[in-house]
This record gives sequence, structure tokens and C-alpha cells, in this order.
Amino acid sequence: MALPELVLTGYPPEDLLLKPAFINKNLEYLEKVKELTENLLVIFGFVGKTNETFNSAAIIFNKKLLAIYNKQHLSNYSVFDEERYFRKGEKNILLKFKENLIGINICEDIYCAEGPTKIQAILGGAELIINISASPYHIKKVHEREKMLHARAIDSRACILYVNIVGGQDELVFDGNSIILNAEGDIIARCAPFEEDFLVYDLDLEEVQSIRLKDAKFKNQRLELLKSEITEPKIIKIPFGELKKPSIKKTPNRQVAGKSTTLAYNNLISCKEEEILKALILGTKDYLHKNRFKKAVLGLSGGVDSALCAVIACFALGNENVTGVLMPSMFSSKESIDDSILLAKNLKINYLQIPITQIYFSYIENLKDIFKSEEINLTKENVQARIRGNILMALSNEFGWLVLSAGNKSEISVGYCTLYGDMVGGLSPLKDIYKTEVYKLCNFINQKFNNLIPKSILTRAPTAELKPNQKDEDSLPPYDILDQIIKSYIENDMDYDYVVNNLGFPAEIVKKVIKMIDSSEYKRRQGPPGIKITQRASGKDRRYPITNKFSEY
Amino acid sequence: MALPELVLTGYPPEDLLLKPAFINKNLEYLEKVKELTENLLVIFGFVGKTNETFNSAAIIFNKKLLAIYNKQHLSNYSVFDEERYFRKGEKNILLKFKENLIGINICEDIYCAEGPTKIQAILGGAELIINISASPYHIKKVHEREKMLHARAIDSRACILYVNIVGGQDELVFDGNSIILNAEGDIIARCAPFEEDFLVYDLDLEEVQSIRLKDAKFKNQRLELLKSEITEPKIIKIPFGELKKPSIKKTPNRQVAGKSTTLAYNNLISCKEEEILKALILGTKDYLHKNRFKKAVLGLSGGVDSALCAVIACFALGNENVTGVLMPSMFSSKESIDDSILLAKNLKINYLQIPITQIYFSYIENLKDIFKSEEINLTKENVQARIRGNILMALSNEFGWLVLSAGNKSEISVGYCTLYGDMVGGLSPLKDIYKTEVYKLCNFINQKFNNLIPKSILTRAPTAELKPNQKDEDSLPPYDILDQIIKSYIENDMDYDYVVNNLGFPAEIVKKVIKMIDSSEYKRRQGPPGIKITQRASGKDRRYPITNKFSEY
Repeated sequence: MALPELVLTGYPPEDLLLKPAFINKNLEYLEKVKELTENLLVIFGFVGKTNETFNSAAIIFNKKLLAIYNKQHLSNYSVFDEERYFRKGEKNILLKFKENLIGINICEDIYCAEGPTKIQAILGGAELIINISASPYHIKKVHEREKMLHARAIDSRACILYVNIVGGQDELVFDGNSIILNAEGDIIARCAPFEEDFLVYDLDLEEVQSIRLKDAKFKNQRLELLKSEITEPKIIKIPFGELKKPSIKKTPNRQVAGKSTTLAYNNLISCKEEEILKALILGTKDYLHKNRFKKAVLGLSGGVDSALCAVIACFALGNENVTGVLMPSMFSSKESIDDSILLAKNLKINYLQIPITQIYFSYIENLKDIFKSEEINLTKENVQARIRGNILMALSNEFGWLVLSAGNKSEISVGYCTLYGDMVGGLSPLKDIYKTEVYKLCNFINQKFNNLIPKSILTRAPTAELKPNQKDEDSLPPYDILDQIIKSYIENDMDYDYVVNNLGFPAEIVKKVIKMIDSSEYKRRQGPPGIKITQRASGKDRRYPITNKFSEY
Repeated sequence: MALPELVLTGYPPEDLLLKPAFINKNLEYLEKVKELTENLLVIFGFVGKTNETFNSAAIIFNKKLLAIYNKQHLSNYSVFDEERYFRKGEKNILLKFKENLIGINICEDIYCAEGPTKIQAILGGAELIINISASPYHIKKVHEREKMLHARAIDSRACILYVNIVGGQDELVFDGNSIILNAEGDIIARCAPFEEDFLVYDLDLEEVQSIRLKDAKFKNQRLELLKSEITEPKIIKIPFGELKKPSIKKTPNRQVAGKSTTLAYNNLISCKEEEILKALILGTKDYLHKNRFKKAVLGLSGGVDSALCAVIACFALGNENVTGVLMPSMFSSKESIDDSILLAKNLKINYLQIPITQIYFSYIENLKDIFKSEEINLTKENVQARIRGNILMALSNEFGWLVLSAGNKSEISVGYCTLYGDMVGGLSPLKDIYKTEVYKLCNFINQKFNNLIPKSILTRAPTAELKPNQKDEDSLPPYDILDQIIKSYIENDMDYDYVVNNLGFPAEIVKKVIKMIDSSEYKRRQGPPGIKITQRASGKDRRYPITNKFSEY
């Protein structure tokens, strides 16, 4: 049985790794798990500790710790900081399992083409590689990962058992998607994506040797590896002797248990929108439940963002655990209010109406001698947004509901949002979803669930309704243009010149957007965590100084 | 002339290092600096770029780039993430300067006892080591650093020119404190701490050789180093020939320019409180000015935190640039209001009075059907704090003033503060200052500046004044106990058991405090940046997951 990387502690444990008590508790649980392994081979991730700290795999058989493998290639980019905590492992391990050899490695190890997998398989002769992982989701990640595993199976001519964490932790969602590949790189078994699963598979390793015998290239690779001074992996024998062989009834496809019965990911997840929704729902559910919240509250503005956020909350928590709050002002249109009520009814969620007009005027009354004019300027817009923030937080304090902030990646990137206003919340589920993608997700939901989101929410021009006749496009370029600029600049690290030349938008628009992105870093720093969906989210994935004079424009 | 590590970009540049345009601009400026070096040897930090990225020192003489040294020991702990961006350098460099050899290295390199300094000095024969640094301040850091430099000078028998950045960037304050040490480890020149300085010193390197000749151990060390297969540093000759020697008039102590005329740090900074204040003032000044804010605003509650914060703001920005805001409620005492006005008058700052009572009642009126009772509970306390946050932010939006949040380390650690309420702000100057230290700093200020802070602010028991007769000690252990627990748990990573046994406080109190710390991570995640003062600040210095089930109690 194989379980994921650092499964005992959750991934990433971050600075908890600096606490002796945390490491010790993890070692205590290693002992507890050991006691549960009668007649069982179990491989799982934990924090290894000598004088140094390691990202380790325990290899346990029948209540005995046979060996520990330490991760050799530490992940230290994007959201990962493993070099801060762990020492690199230096030894390869092979497990002798009856007639077969099994190589063990951890996550990033298998991404490295000339790394542990090849050494264990080609130099050591392992027919099966077990890789335990904590590989977080982003768009296209499943495809990229499986392409890599396919290549690694072929170039090491070994079966691969790839086991990934499933679930959410803070900004990360782990998509599971554990798979088994044969030595020709075909996926021969698959766990369900975005949910817990337990797969039992009776693997035939005999065919690996016959494939290898036919492969001339294979022998040359072995020579190449030997030339490069790599030590032979250490072989640990499983003390099988006294135990009877576990009996598994064979089936034609050799898979005897597990939720997923298809090998093709596309049969499980029909399109990008379904995949993203599953990630958002899992991330939201786990953030709340693991932090011991059962219920959530969010403002319903009549816009697409709060509509999508409400749908996600219902799928994640159950509609009986979601409360929507309408907080109309004198600038709210009848359509927004009607749509919000209709949405709440469609979703069968509890909703409250708390108008902010009177509260707003009491601020204006007390500040009128100080304000420069009576005009509804940015100051007064923000006062309204912050009144709503205060009301949502009051409900949170009073009833223990977690506030969901509905802001999307487009507006958070350019700072078109009010700090301590609409940015208030424990979680910001759409933080990494572009506005154009918000529409796509809403349309997908409406197709699948018979227009759950009122159509007029999707057709009305986006507006913050913080002053009369306000439209987002008064302050921002159209979202299809804006999103392309943000994607180029943030996700792809393109320079200003390159964005202008590559996308062909007017320099003035690009300049304005980049300037807005750069100058709103301070807002993002204080926003709630969101769920990583794109290749570059904000938060731990994009670490910018607030104070820096650099500018390209 | 030597300038600090990464002086072209500021430290740390963080993910700006992933942007090609940022690296290129840095290389453009390298060229610009080169053009200014007529007859001048200049050594300074920049981002080196080949296929890899390096933390580099440029060695430029008379408009020519003679060599580049790449940092070998990357800092990757505490607030540092250099492994995320930089490749390690592998070569040592020596500069042949007339009859002398100079070794160059960068920051962390010199902390390593068996590292580049010894190799350059003992194996390469360098009489002078120039170390360019970006070493941020924390309490005791100056002493630790100078002790280390003293040891390094002695064990390498070389003079050391140590050049450190001065100024603030986000959470970090760099204290400057550049010094020169002779080959016996004595400090022979010093730059002013916490301010920019330019020191000209005529260094005598001849005595280094005579010291070395007398030292038998020195020869043995050289043998040891040679045995350990370290390659000789590469020698770069300065093409001096055609240039005249710069003429510097010698003075008895050989220092011919520079602000600091004393060698002893204690003569410049009389006590810990003076040092901390200088760090806070520099950090606040640079955060505002470098982010193009001239003016600040803060709430005046009548408590010590806002009083200290106001004093720091005045020193950092000038009292004409600071506005204090009194926002009394029906729970505010006359003493608090009177003290706040007196403080504002003492400091000669502008102050405003904006009562929140009417606004508060309009919230209560609109929420009364929803709230569970009429009691002044935590919900209603937070509503008040968030009204004040909204008002301060409105003033910020209207006038372009940056809001300073006055929270201290004690309350932020245990979450005794209101997110989006008193935690509102662009900067939280006291975020890393314990409450007990706040009092010490206030007393120091009052001693030095004739009771600038009204005495009754210092003698009244701390209270949030959010409900009748409230005292901090109703919710928290006394601050002298609380601060010791926080320090043990956060700064020293002590386990719960160890804190109980080590400090001897009742287990129940320790448990309660640790529980409060652990469960308020989500608040700290959304707070404004603060200035690192202790060995372990929050923010980049302490990275905890919000979602994790670990607990020791």
C-alpha cells in the first residue's frame, strides 16, 4: 500500500517544521501506523529526522520499519520552499519483493529525467517505481504530469505507481489523480480525481523483464549511468518468509477495487470548466471543514462573481449551510436586487437583506466637515464597500459563519477592489479566476444545471454600483483585453514591450494595466487566501516587494 | 569604493528576479555606473546573469568591468529565500592592487568559518577582504555580526571592509553599521548606524604581512586548506599603470571623512531602546517615502501603543505630516480623550475628532433583528473597531495619507485585535514590539524628551474601551507573563511542555496563550506589514499554514 508524500503532516507544513514538537508528533504517528501493518507492506511520506530534517518515505512491512528513503530533488520554486527546511537525500533504495525489485522516490524526484527513477530502474533493475507525491493542481497540470510520467516509464522501462495527495490546504488544491503506468507508458489504472479513493490493483511485473530484454537502448543506458559514478541503490529485502501471500482475486483489467473504472481522464472530467469547478469546490470545502467551519456567508451583489461564489459554496458545503446577504444602497438597481433574490431562491439558500443607506449617511454626516466635496468620489465608494465588509464580519462574529470574498483574479490583479471592503473574508475562492473565466464557469453551470444562475446576471454589464450609472469598463479596459494582459504579465512574466508587441494592444492600455498591477501589491498582501488555479496565482506563488522603484514604463 | 550587496536593485528583489526586464534594467544600470568610475575602483552588488542568475559583485576600475564575483553561500532561512532565485557561485576572486591582494565576497559568505574569506586570505594570500552585505537588523544583530567579523579577521589574519545596506524595505530595516577591522580583529573605522554615510579611510595593509609572519598557526591553516582540494582563487590585476595614485591626506586615525568619529557602537547608541527606536523610525520613514507617501494618519485611543506610534511617525516624517484622529464612542473615558488631545498638543500634530457613536447606532439599528441579543458582545466590539478602520481609510483615500496601525506584537500574536478594525493600515510599525517593550520605549522617550507622552497614558491599565469597564487583563494574562510565553513559543520555537517547565507558569495559562497564537494565524496573514525587530517577526520570517490539525495541547 502506498500513501502520498508527507501524508502524516499535510503538505506543505511550512514553519511547523521548525518546531521540535511537530516533528516528534509526526514520529509518534509513524509508530502508530507501524502497528497497523500486520502482513502489509506500506510506503508513505513523513518528516525524517536525524541531525538533519528530510522529506522522507517510510517503508514498513509487518510492523517493521525496513528502510527510509529521503527525497533527493527538493522543490524550491513557485509555491514550494523545500530548501528552507529539508536536506537533500543522497541514497537510492530498492525493495526486494519476492522476485521483483521496487524503486521508491518522492514527487520532484521523478520529474528529473536523469534522476532517481532511472537510477533505480536501469542501474538497480527495479521493475516498479513507486513515487509518492504532493503535487498541487493548476490548469493543464494533470496533462503535463501524465505526459512526464509516460516519458519516465518509457525511458526507464518500468511500471510506475504514482500516488498523489487529494484535498485542499490553504491556497493549494491537490487533485489526487493517482495512476499506474506499465513499462510502455500506458496508464493501466486510475484513481478518481478531486476525491479520496483507494485502488487495489494486481500488477504483473513479469512483462517488464521481457520488454527490457527486447530493448537494445536499455543496455546502453545502463552503461551510461554506470560511467557517471552513480552508486548502486541499496537493496532492502522484505522478510516475507513466515507470511502467507495476500490473496487478490484477479479481474480482466486487474483492478479489483477503486472508484474510477476508466483509464481516460477525459471520461471523468469533460472540459476545463468542470475541472476548475471541481478544484474550487474541493478547495473551498476543505478550507472550511479543516478549519472547523460548517457554514459560510457572502454578499450577493447581483453580479456574476457573487453568483458563482454562491454556487461553489452550495456544492462545497450544502445549500443549507450558505447564507447570502443583500446589502443594497441608493445606487443599487432593482435588477440587481431581484436577481440576487432569484439566485438565492434557485440555490435554496437562506438570504438576508440589510440596507446600508442609513449607515452610509451617518458616516457622511460625521465626516462632512472633513471631506473636500459632496461628490461621490472614490473615498465615498470605498466607505460603502467597507460598510458591507463590516456587516458581513458582524454576521461572521455573531454566528460563526466564514465570510467568502467573491473577488476575481482580474480585479484583484489591478486593484479594482476595496481593501477591508469587498476584499473582506476568510477565503477568496475566485481569487485566481479571471473575469472571462468566471463567465465561462457560470455558463457551464447553467448548461449542466438548467439555468441555476439567472440569465440577466450574465448579460448585464459588470458594475460595482457604488455611484450612479457606474460600469467596470469606465475604469478598466474590456475584460477580454484586460485578462490577456494580466495573463501575459503575471503568469508568463512577459515584459511590458513584449506584451505590447505580442498581444498587439495599444501601448497606453498595456501601460495603464501594468501600472495598476504594480501599484496594488499592498492590497493583495492583505487579501484573504485564494485557491491556486492558474500557473501563477498570487500569494506564495508570486512574491513581490511592495517597496521597489522598478518600473518599465 | 565599495557599495552593498544588490545595491542596484534593493534587497530582497523577490520575484522581480523572475522578470527579464528587471534583470536587464539592472544590467543597464551596471553600464551607467561603469561610466562614472574614472580613475576609481568600485565594487558593488548587482544581479549577475548568464544562463543562470547570480547574486553578484561587480569589480569595476576606470570604466572597465574587471571581474564578477558570485555569492557562494546563499541565505535561505528566516526572511531569506535566495535559493529560489540564485545559483551558487563556485569561484573565488582576488584583486591584485599594486603590491596587495584583495579578496571579495558577499554577505553570508563571510559568516561561513571555512568559506570564501579563509580561502581568499589564507590560500590566496589576500590582506584585505571586502564583504558587501544586505544584513537586516534585529535586536542583538549588530553585536553578533561584529563578533563574527572579529573572529573572521583573526582566523584569516586579514583586514575586513564590511559594507552593509542602510534603509528600510517592507518588513526589513538594514542598519548600515559598515565597519573596517584590522587583521587583529579590532574595529578601526565605523560608519554611522541607521543612516547613510560615506567613509574614506586610508588603510595600511603592510602590517598584515608582518602579523602573518609572526603567526605559526597561520602556516598550518594554509596547509590544511591546501589539503582540502580547494582551488586557488583567480587573480585579477588592476591595470593601474597609466593612472596617478589618488592623493588622500593622512590623519592620525587614518579616517579622513565619514559621519561617525567613534569606533565604539555603544558611544553612538546608548541602549537597546535607542537602537529599536532608530530602527522603527528609519523603517517607517523609508516605507512611506519610498512608496511616495509624505503624510500619515493614525487613530489616537489614549493608550500607549498609539502614543508610541505617533511619536515614531513624528520623528520619521515630521510632526507637520502626521494627523491623529480621536474616534470616541460611548465607552471612551474622559481620560483617554484628554490624554489623546494632550499628546497631540505635545507632539504639535494636527488632530481630528470624529465620534463613532451615531454611526455605531445606525449599524445596531439595521442589524438588531439579526443579532442574537442586545448584550455588548464580541460582535458589537468588532463593529466599533471596524467603524474606526473605515474612517481612517476614508481619510487615507480622501487626502492620500498612509494609515499607521498601532498594534503591538503581544496582541497581534494572540489575535487580541480586530481584523479590518484596528488592524487597518499600510504599515504596522509596532507589529514586532512586545507590549512590555512598548512601555520601555515610551519611558525612554519621556526621559529623553521631557515627558512628551502624558504620564497617565503610561500608568492607566491597558483597555480597548469597546465595552464598559473593559481591561486587557480580563482576556489576557498580565503582559509581562504573556510576553515571556510568546517569546519562548514564537521566537525560540519552544514546545508547549518546554515553555511550561522552563518558565514555570501554570500550564493552563500557557495552553491558553498557545491556543490563541495558533488560532489567529488567519488574522496575521491579512495584517499590514510591520518592521522586523526581534529574532523572529511574523510575515516572511514565520510562515505558518492556516490549515493544519497539529496541536500540542
